[in-house]
Amino acid sequence: MIKMYGFWRSAASFRVRAALNLKGLAFEEEMINLDANAQHDPAYEALNPHASVPSLIVDGGTPLTQSMAILEYLEEKYPSPALLPADPNGRARVRSLALLWAADYHPLIVPRVRAYLAATMGQDEAARTAWVKHWFREGLATGEKYLANDPLTGRFCHGGSVSFADLCLMGQAMGARVFKVDISDLPTVSRIVENCLKLDAIQRALPLNQPGAPK
Amino acid sequence: MIKMYGFWRSAASFRVRAALNLKGLAFEEEMINLDANAQHDPAYEALNPHASVPSLIVDGGTPLTQSMAILEYLEEKYPSPALLPADPNGRARVRSLALLWAADYHPLIVPRVRAYLAATMGQDEAARTAWVKHWFREGLATGEKYLANDPLTGRFCHGGSVSFADLCLMGQAMGARVFKVDISDLPTVSRIVENCLKLDAIQRALPLNQPGAPK
Repeated sequence: MIKMYGFWRSAASFRVRAALNLKGLAFEEEMINLDANAQHDPAYEALNPHASVPSLIVDGGTPLTQSMAILEYLEEKYPSPALLPADPNGRARVRSLALLWAADYHPLIVPRVRAYLAATMGQDEAARTAWVKHWFREGLATGEKYLANDPLTGRFCHGGSVSFADLCLMGQAMGARVFKVDISDLPTVSRIVENCLKLDAIQRALPLNQPGAPK
Repeated sequence: MIKMYGFWRSAASFRVRAALNLKGLAFEEEMINLDANAQHDPAYEALNPHASVPSLIVDGGTPLTQSMAILEYLEEKYPSPALLPADPNGRARVRSLALLWAADYHPLIVPRVRAYLAATMGQDEAARTAWVKHWFREGLATGEKYLANDPLTGRFCHGGSVSFADLCLMGQAMGARVFKVDISDLPTVSRIVENCLKLDAIQRALPLNQPGAPK
């Protein structure tokens, strides 16, 4: 029995939800409403000291935190279908791409950072929106540099199979879409996003298809 | 033959350098001077499209990028001594702690972010320094919440062996020290940092012990 704590808008929740779907694992998801600061409820903080989503509890075990650590756990425990290639260099390439988005860019736009920009740096909503759009754009444009003209790039970020890299790319790309970031000049990224959107497991994981999302 | 491209101050370079030392792997390091923008030299960008350090080339192969992807590669290729525990829950805990620092906090203080705060948000040096200190402090204080009172915490972040988590903690803690961030009220983090500093492999990897560092 797999229980996930997530939030509809969270890119990190999307990554784990999509991995669970791709691996065909049944799970139950409880939404932690970040807009109502529910991540700071003492009961949730006891489970996740970082007060972040997602968290995952497998068979009543210790709560797992941090989406990329959860993806690695799922890959080790439920290896098929694989979301990492088998060869060491391929694994390193997929993890590097995944971390480009999950580590270098996504953390810049989360609630605690936007709160600091507002409260401590006095940045108004327009400046904060420009910040968010800038980093969405930078992350996807840097990804384009990695992916374009690399023979290892295929239908997806790495060949013909969905991997951790695609899950992280999609988390960023779906956020960028909400903020109307133009990525039409990034052909490789745009093409892979469209290919991911054709997959039912991805569709069912999309932020806008979760309970609580705006219609 | 292992060739690393790093920079003395880079926490991400420290992580990989320390892992190589701990695993007893000989390597040659070329410093990419971030203060002179050498990461944007076309020859280096061809090797690392993200223009970041570190990069690692093993036996003349494809350049590897992103420190956490490199750590996973090294763990798979040179498993002993292990920097991840053997049990799935332990691995997930170590990776979660590592990513807390490497993904959630470290990316907030890198050059491209400080440049945006200065150029686009008009934040002066005092405001930028306050930003850096705030996130160093937050990352280490959140780590304390994870580590304190958890029976899995030992001499190091996870039991009695150095792991990915300690390498990421040390990267943050050494940066915090340069900025004179007070962490004396974080007893578990402070204790683990002191234990790490007793290791020769860590000492040899420390930022201030690299060529180019201030005396």
